[in-house]
Amino acid sequence: MIVDCAHYKQGKRQNEEPLELGRAAQLARASGEGEFVWIGLHQPEPGDLALLAEQFGLHELAVEDAERRHQRPKIEDYDDSYFIVLRTGHYHEREETVHFGEIHIFIGPGYVITVRHGPGSELASARSRLEARPDLLALGPGAAVWAIVDKVVDDYFPVVEGIEDDIEEVEADVFADDRPAPTERIYHLKREVIEFHRAVWPLLKPLEALEAGAFVRVHDELRRFFRDVHDHARRIDEQVNTQRELLTSILEANLALVSVSQNEIVKKISAIAAIIAAPTLIASVYGMNFEYMPELDERAGYPLALTAMAAFVLALALFFRRIRWL
Amino acid sequence: MIVDCAHYKQGKRQNEEPLELGRAAQLARASGEGEFVWIGLHQPEPGDLALLAEQFGLHELAVEDAERRHQRPKIEDYDDSYFIVLRTGHYHEREETVHFGEIHIFIGPGYVITVRHGPGSELASARSRLEARPDLLALGPGAAVWAIVDKVVDDYFPVVEGIEDDIEEVEADVFADDRPAPTERIYHLKREVIEFHRAVWPLLKPLEALEAGAFVRVHDELRRFFRDVHDHARRIDEQVNTQRELLTSILEANLALVSVSQNEIVKKISAIAAIIAAPTLIASVYGMNFEYMPELDERAGYPLALTAMAAFVLALALFFRRIRWL
Amino acid sequence: MIVDCAHYKQGKRQNEEPLELGRAAQLARASGEGEFVWIGLHQPEPGDLALLAEQFGLHELAVEDAERRHQRPKIEDYDDSYFIVLRTGHYHEREETVHFGEIHIFIGPGYVITVRHGPGSELASARSRLEARPDLLALGPGAAVWAIVDKVVDDYFPVVEGIEDDIEEVEADVFADDRPAPTERIYHLKREVIEFHRAVWPLLKPLEALEAGAFVRVHDELRRFFRDVHDHARRIDEQVNTQRELLTSILEANLALVSVSQNEIVKKISAIAAIIAAPTLIASVYGMNFEYMPELDERAGYPLALTAMAAFVLALALFFRRIRWL
Amino acid sequence: MIVDCAHYKQGKRQNEEPLELGRAAQLARASGEGEFVWIGLHQPEPGDLALLAEQFGLHELAVEDAERRHQRPKIEDYDDSYFIVLRTGHYHEREETVHFGEIHIFIGPGYVITVRHGPGSELASARSRLEARPDLLALGPGAAVWAIVDKVVDDYFPVVEGIEDDIEEVEADVFADDRPAPTERIYHLKREVIEFHRAVWPLLKPLEALEAGAFVRVHDELRRFFRDVHDHARRIDEQVNTQRELLTSILEANLALVSVSQNEIVKKISAIAAIIAAPTLIASVYGMNFEYMPELDERAGYPLALTAMAAFVLALALFFRRIRWL
Amino acid sequence: MIVDCAHYKQGKRQNEEPLELGRAAQLARASGEGEFVWIGLHQPEPGDLALLAEQFGLHELAVEDAERRHQRPKIEDYDDSYFIVLRTGHYHEREETVHFGEIHIFIGPGYVITVRHGPGSELASARSRLEARPDLLALGPGAAVWAIVDKVVDDYFPVVEGIEDDIEEVEADVFADDRPAPTERIYHLKREVIEFHRAVWPLLKPLEALEAGAFVRVHDELRRFFRDVHDHARRIDEQVNTQRELLTSILEANLALVSVSQNEIVKKISAIAAIIAAPTLIASVYGMNFEYMPELDERAGYPLALTAMAAFVLALALFFRRIRWL
Repeated sequence: MIVDCAHYKQGKRQNEEPLELGRAAQLARASGEGEFVWIGLHQPEPGDLALLAEQFGLHELAVEDAERRHQRPKIEDYDDSYFIVLRTGHYHEREETVHFGEIHIFIGPGYVITVRHGPGSELASARSRLEARPDLLALGPGAAVWAIVDKVVDDYFPVVEGIEDDIEEVEADVFADDRPAPTERIYHLKREVIEFHRAVWPLLKPLEALEAGAFVRVHDELRRFFRDVHDHARRIDEQVNTQRELLTSILEANLALVSVSQNEIVKKISAIAAIIAAPTLIASVYGMNFEYMPELDERAGYPLALTAMAAFVLALALFFRRIRWL
Repeated sequence: MIVDCAHYKQGKRQNEEPLELGRAAQLARASGEGEFVWIGLHQPEPGDLALLAEQFGLHELAVEDAERRHQRPKIEDYDDSYFIVLRTGHYHEREETVHFGEIHIFIGPGYVITVRHGPGSELASARSRLEARPDLLALGPGAAVWAIVDKVVDDYFPVVEGIEDDIEEVEADVFADDRPAPTERIYHLKREVIEFHRAVWPLLKPLEALEAGAFVRVHDELRRFFRDVHDHARRIDEQVNTQRELLTSILEANLALVSVSQNEIVKKISAIAAIIAAPTLIASVYGMNFEYMPELDERAGYPLALTAMAAFVLALALFFRRIRWL
Repeated sequence: MIVDCAHYKQGKRQNEEPLELGRAAQLARASGEGEFVWIGLHQPEPGDLALLAEQFGLHELAVEDAERRHQRPKIEDYDDSYFIVLRTGHYHEREETVHFGEIHIFIGPGYVITVRHGPGSELASARSRLEARPDLLALGPGAAVWAIVDKVVDDYFPVVEGIEDDIEEVEADVFADDRPAPTERIYHLKREVIEFHRAVWPLLKPLEALEAGAFVRVHDELRRFFRDVHDHARRIDEQVNTQRELLTSILEANLALVSVSQNEIVKKISAIAAIIAAPTLIASVYGMNFEYMPELDERAGYPLALTAMAAFVLALALFFRRIRWL
Repeated sequence: MIVDCAHYKQGKRQNEEPLELGRAAQLARASGEGEFVWIGLHQPEPGDLALLAEQFGLHELAVEDAERRHQRPKIEDYDDSYFIVLRTGHYHEREETVHFGEIHIFIGPGYVITVRHGPGSELASARSRLEARPDLLALGPGAAVWAIVDKVVDDYFPVVEGIEDDIEEVEADVFADDRPAPTERIYHLKREVIEFHRAVWPLLKPLEALEAGAFVRVHDELRRFFRDVHDHARRIDEQVNTQRELLTSILEANLALVSVSQNEIVKKISAIAAIIAAPTLIASVYGMNFEYMPELDERAGYPLALTAMAAFVLALALFFRRIRWL
Repeated sequence: MIVDCAHYKQGKRQNEEPLELGRAAQLARASGEGEFVWIGLHQPEPGDLALLAEQFGLHELAVEDAERRHQRPKIEDYDDSYFIVLRTGHYHEREETVHFGEIHIFIGPGYVITVRHGPGSELASARSRLEARPDLLALGPGAAVWAIVDKVVDDYFPVVEGIEDDIEEVEADVFADDRPAPTERIYHLKREVIEFHRAVWPLLKPLEALEAGAFVRVHDELRRFFRDVHDHARRIDEQVNTQRELLTSILEANLALVSVSQNEIVKKISAIAAIIAAPTLIASVYGMNFEYMPELDERAGYPLALTAMAAFVLALALFFRRIRWL
C-alpha cells in the first residue's frame, strides 16, 4: 500500500495530495540538485515492488531483500543507489516483549522509497519533522534518510527504558524475602535484551560510515546529523550491553539467594524436629515397663514430666531463636 | 563418481549429456572469456582426483585436501586457480543433530570442478538455477562458485530454524513445573550450535574477500551477489551466536530452577514430618506408665486424645498450606 | 545560572567580577592568540543556552545535547568549535552508590563555555588551579579544557577507592563464618561498578585523540598534559575492570560458601537427630509389653537403661565431634 | 647429542654418514643457492651449542633460549638468520595428559640446526619425507623448516582426537544415571586443553607471517606449503577452542545434574521416612494407656492394627511411586 | 636516598665511588655518543627529585608521577627524554600474596635516573650485569633501560612459579575427599593473579614499541634485546592468563564437588535414619496394649523381637552399603 508520495524541491513539498507513481518516477529522473520524490509504502503487495523496481531501476538483489522480512540492519551501496535496512523496536510493557518491525529504504538520484513491514515506527512524524526544516530538506534524499534513521533510533529509547524499569522490578523481587525467585522473568528479559541487541548493534557500523562520509550521495552537511544519530545508537548499545551484564549478574545472585533461602528452611525444619523429638524422648522413657521406676508411682510424676517436656520445648525454642535458626 | 560435466558458453549449456573428461579438459584449455566447463563429482574414487589433477593441472596441496574430509571452510589462491572448501549443514530434526557434508571447489581458467563429500546439499538445483540466468552464466566460472556458495548458505537457514524451534521447546520444558529438567538436551543443543558455528564462522572472512573483489578471476559484476551471500552468512552467524548465548542462559536458569524445586520439596517434606510428629508425641505422652494420670481413667480420654491428634494434624496442615509449604 | 565569566589574556585573568554576557561575546570575537573568555553555567535555564548559542554561534545539535542530561562522554568536532561531554562521579559512602553529574563544554575561537548538570565536580578549583599557571593559561581555551578534564578524572579516584574499600569489606563478610552471605551487597556493588565503567570507558578514546593531537584548536604544548590525564583515566578504567572481575569471583565464591555452609548445617542436624534417635530406640524397646522381659523385673533395670541411654548419647556426641559434624 | 648431519645440494643428500661438525660449517659457508647442511641435535650438552654458536655465528640471545626449555613458540629474525621455537605435543592416553616437547631451529645461509628437547616429535621422518622431494629440497633451508613445522603440526591431530574421545567419554559419564559425577576428570581435561591451546595458539601468527612471505630467506615457492600448515594449525586451534567451550558447558551441566540427583535422593528419603512414620504413629496410638480403649479388648484388634499398618505402608508406597518420588 | 651514581664511557665505569650530583649533571650535559651517568635513588625524599629535575631539566609531569606510587607501567616520550614506569613483583610464599614495588626511570641525553619505590627488585645486580658487558654499555643510556627492564621481567618468573605451585596445592585440596573445600584460598589466589596481570599486561605494548624501534634514543642494536624481554613478558602474561582461567575452573569444580559431597552426606544421613527407624517401629508394635497379642506371652517373644530388630538393622546396613549410600 502506498502511504504517501511527495515531491520536494528547494526545501519545500511541491504537492499536497500523494503523487501518482509514474509521475513521481518522471520527476525523479528529471530532478536537479537537492530535489527528490519520497514514496512511502506500508506492507506492499508483491506487485508494488516490481512496479517500483521497473520505474526506478532498483537492483534485483535489493528488491528481493525488500520483499522478505527478517533482514539484518545494513546499508548496501549499488553504484547509483543505496539500499538500507533498519529494524524498529517497540516495547510491549505488559508482555515484557520487544516487538520488531522493519523499514527498508531505497535511495537513489532524485528518489527515496521507504517500505515498512510489521508494526513499529510510523514515518509520518519523521516526514513532517523534516518538512519543517527546509534547510535540511534542500540537501536532497540523504536528508530523508537522516529523518528516518533518527526516528528509528529515537524510538529505541523507550524500549531501553522499559527494560530498565523491568530490571529494577526484578531486582526488587530477587532481594525481597517474601517473594518467590523470578527466574523465568529474568531469563525472559535477558532473551529480549539479546534480541534487541541484535537489532541495534549491526547498525553502528553503517552509521559510522555515514558519519565518516563514506556514502557520496549523502550531503556533507548531513554528516554531523548522522554523527548525532550514531552517538544515540551507541548510547543505546552501551546501555543494552550493561543490561545484559546486569541480568547475568541477577541470575547468579538469584541462584545464590535460592541457596541461602534453602539454608534458612533447613535450619527451621531441623529446629522444629529437635523441639518435637526432645519431649517424645521423655515420654518414651516413662513409657518403659520397668518394675522399679520410682517416678511412676509418685503422684507428682505425671505433671512434673509434662512440665519437663514443656520446659525442654521452651528452652530449645529460645535457643534456636537465639542462634537464628527459627 | 562423476555426476555431471557440462560446457557453458555465452550463457548457455552446450551439451545435454555429460561430457567425457578428456574432452572437457580440452574445452577448458581452449575456453574464451566467460566460457567454462563444470564437472561435478560425488564422493570420488582415489583415481578420479588424480586424473583430474593431471588433466587440469591442479595443485598437489589442493588435491591432497580434496581427498580427505574435515577441512576448514576456506578459499585458497593458487595463482592461476582457486581452491574452495565449504561445509554443508543439514538438521536432523528427530536426533536434534546437525549433519555436516563438504563441498570442495577447484576453479581455474575455463573450468569449475566440484567435489561433494558425505550427505548434504546436492548441487543439481544450484546448477539448474544458474542455467536459468544466462546473464550470470556468461560471467564465467565465478558465477558457478556464487551459485554453489549461495545454495550452501541458503541451506543453513533451515538448520538455524530447526535449532530455534528446539530451543523454544527446551525453554518451555525448563519453566514447566511438571516436567523434569532437560539438562542433557540443553547441553546437546549447545554442542550442536558450537559445532555449527565452527562450520559457518570461518566462511565469513573469505566471503568478505569475495565481496571486496580480492579474487581477480571472479567477475566484478558478481561482487554484489557475493555481498548478498555474505550478508546471509552473517545473519546466520549472528543468530547462531545468539542461540549459543541463550543456551548458556537456559543452562543457568535451569540450575536455579532445580534449586528452587529442591526448596519446594524440602518444605513439603518437613511439613509432612511435622504433621506426623505432633500426634506421635501426644500418643507417646499417654503411653507413659505413671500411676496417677487422671486422663487415663476418664471414659472420654481415648476419644478426646484421638480428637486432639486429628485437630493438631488439621491445624498443622492448614498452617503449612497457608505459608505455602504444602 | 551563570556562575562565573572571566576574560583571560596573556596568561592572566583580566576581570575580578563576572563579565556581562554580551561583553564576553564581543571579547571572544576580537580575541587574539591565547586569549579567551570562560563562561561557567550551573543547571542553566532554557533561555540561557539559547542566548549563548546566539551570541557564540553554537551548533544546534550541540546545544540540543547540552539541554538534556544523560549524554555519553564524547568530544565532537564542529569545524570551528568542539563540544565535549564529561560525566562526573561522586561516591556516596553510606549508600554505596556512585552519583553522576555531567559537564558539557563548548570550546571555540576565543571562548570556553562550561555547563554543569546535577551534583558532582564543582569547577571553581579547576579554574583557580589554572589561573595559578599563567604559562598554560596563555595556551588558549584548550588549557581550560585540560583543567576541567583533569579535575573530573582526578575526582574519579576517590570513587574507585571507595568501591575498593567496600569490596574489601564484602570479602571479609563472605569469608567470615558468623556473618550472613552479603549477596545483595555484592550485586549492588557490581551494578555501581558497571555503571561507573560506562561513565569512564567512552572517555578513553577522545582522550587518546587529544593526546595524539587530533584536535587542531588544542595547543601542541598541551598534548603531554592530556597524555597525563589519559594515563590517569586508563588507570581508573583498568582498576574498574579489575573490580568488576573481582566482584564476579566474589559472587561465585559466595555461592560456593553458601553451599558449604549448607553442608555444615545438614551435618549438624543429622548428628543431633541420630543422638536423639538412639535413646528413643532404647526406650521403645523397654516399652514393649512382652511377658518375659527379664530386665524389666531387675531393680537396677531402670537406672541401667538410663545410663545406657546417656552413654549412647555421649558416645555419639563424641563421635560426631571427631568427624567434625558437630 | 648430534643425531644427524647431512649436506644437501641440488635436491639431493650428499653424504650417507653424518658429517663432522667443522666440515659442515665449512660447507655451509661455501654453500650456493639451494644448498645447505642440516644438523640435528637431541638434548644437547652445554658444550654442543657453544661449539655450534662459534662455528655458525649464532646470536647469543638465540643460543641462550635454545639452552633452556619452556620457551613460547615463536620465530625471531636475526638479520642473517632466524630462530624458531616449536612445542611438540603427544597425548598420553592412559594419563589423559598432553606431554610437551620442544624443537628449536636455527636457520641461516647454508645451514639448518634443529635442537630437540624432551619427548615428542622425532624428526627423522620429517627428514626422510623431505629427502623424497628433491623439488622442495632444492629450495634451500626453508624447505627443512617447512618439513619440521608440518610434522609438528600434523602430530597435533592425534592429541586433539585423543582429547575429543575423552570428552565423549566424559559426556556419557555425566549423563549416565548410575555413574558418579566425573568432576575431577572434566577439570583435568580442561586443564590439558588450556595448556595445549597455549602451545598451539602463539604459532598462528608466525605461520601467518611465513605464509605472507615476511621472511626473505624462505623461498616464495614454499609459501603455499606454509599456508597449508597454517590452515592445519588454525583447524587445530579452532577445535581446541571448541573443546574448551564444551568442557565449560559440561562442567555446568554436571553441576545441574548433581543438583537434580540430590532432588531425587531427597524425594526418596522423604518417601521412606513417611512410609515408616505412619505405622509408627498407629502403634503409638495403641500403646496409650487409657482405661477405656475398646479396640484393645477386641480379639481381632491386634491383627487388624497390623493390617492397617501394612495397608498404610502399601498405600503410601504406591502413592510415592505414582508421583515418582520412589 | 641516592644509592649509586656512576659515569660510563666507552663501555666502562669511570668512577669507583658514587659521584656527586652536580658533577654528574655536568658530565651528562657534556656527554658524547654512548657516554652517560646512571643515578640510582631509593625512596627519595621530596627534595631529591626537585634537585634532579632542576639539574637535568626533567619534565614537571614526569616528576609529579615519580613522586607518587601506584602508577601504571608505561613509557612516555618527552621529546628529549623518556619517562618509564615499571612495577616489580615479589611473591610472598607464606602469605600467598604478590608484593609490588615500583621503578621509575628518567632517561635523557647522557643520563639515566632510576627511582625505586617500596620493596622488590634491587637494581645493583642489573647494574653489575651491565658493567660486565662493555659492548652493550657502550650503546648508551638505552642499555641501562634494557638491563633494568630485563631484571624486572626476570623477577616475574618466580612469582608465576610460586602461584603455579599454590594452584597445584589447591587442586589437590579440591579433589581430596578428606579436606574441606578451599574456597577462600582459591578466591585469594585469583585476586593475586588478577592484580599481577594488571602489573604485567600494560608493559607489553611499550615493550613492543621498544622492539619495533619507536624510541629513537634507544640504540638499534638493543632492539633484539628488548625483543627478548618482550618475549619473556608475553610468556609471563600468557601464563598468568592461563592461571586466571584455571582458577575460574577450579572455583566451578569446587562448587560442583561441594554439591556432590552434600549428596553423599544426605545419603548417609538418610541411611542411618532408616536403620534406626525400622527397629523403633518393631518396638512400637510390641508396645501396643492389645489384650490378645499372642507373641507377648511367648517366652521367646522378647529375644525373637530383639533378634528381628538386629536382623533388620543388619539387612538395612548391608543394603545401604551395597547401593553406596553408606
